[in-house]
Amino acid sequence: MKLDTLGRHILVEYYNCDEEILKNVELIQELMNEAARVAGATIVNSVFHHFNPWGVSGAVIISESHLTIHTWPEYGYAAVDLFTCGDTVNPWKGFDYLEKMLKSDRSESIEIPRGMTEKIKKYYPKPLEKIVFKPENN
Amino acid sequence: MKLDTLGRHILVEYYNCDEEILKNVELIQELMNEAARVAGATIVNSVFHHFNPWGVSGAVIISESHLTIHTWPEYGYAAVDLFTCGDTVNPWKGFDYLEKMLKSDRSESIEIPRGMTEKIKKYYPKPLEKIVFKPENN
Repeated sequence: MKLDTLGRHILVEYYNCDEEILKNVELIQELMNEAARVAGATIVNSVFHHFNPWGVSGAVIISESHLTIHTWPEYGYAAVDLFTCGDTVNPWKGFDYLEKMLKSDRSESIEIPRGMTEKIKKYYPKPLEKIVFKPENN
Repeated sequence: MKLDTLGRHILVEYYNCDEEILKNVELIQELMNEAARVAGATIVNSVFHHFNPWGVSGAVIISESHLTIHTWPEYGYAAVDLFTCGDTVNPWKGFDYLEKMLKSDRSESIEIPRGMTEKIKKYYPKPLEKIVFKPENN
């Protein structure tokens, strides 16, 4: 079967990453933007922040939703989200890229559908025809 | 029992929201920033984008992680994430605020722990003592 959904969302826990990489806000921003490109996404904007004394948070807004990261260098841990919509992107390519570049030797992930079309239709007050993540030819 | 975790992440599907609100990027940015404040979070930065012909995407980076939103006005649907760390914030307050302000008459949510300390310790190569979401007195 195929589940009809606007998007899918991968929540990742990257354990035991390279601590120096997790501290470096410029590098993390570069890696997250590249992860978006590797996934096939179109980058709209991104915002990153370096916390004192360490740790980085940031988000990449893509036409197909977003990628976010929060790092704890002191524990070698990063929480990453890859939320993508549509068939032209593959968030797992971004996942693989980040696992390698953060040098995580162990990770765990969950994939959750977002915007299941049957439910959107069910709760919408009028009949909805075809549900697509973005207007076609746009 | 109490689960020891750096953070928690609420994934929300807001169904059948007010379509005019979902189209309005300035308003959505304002509501998302206010949701962060209502949750007790400290806002670091935010970035929002209005897609042609409609739909809004955005992220609010907070000291305690992030809030994001993606809207589909044509379906009355919004996908929201509220990811917070530490004991001083309550993402459910942000959830309630947004449900009301987006005029969603139905929503569904999942709450997922992020950064479970037992797993971080398990995979870290050296012994780790107390795991805290941010350095104390910082």
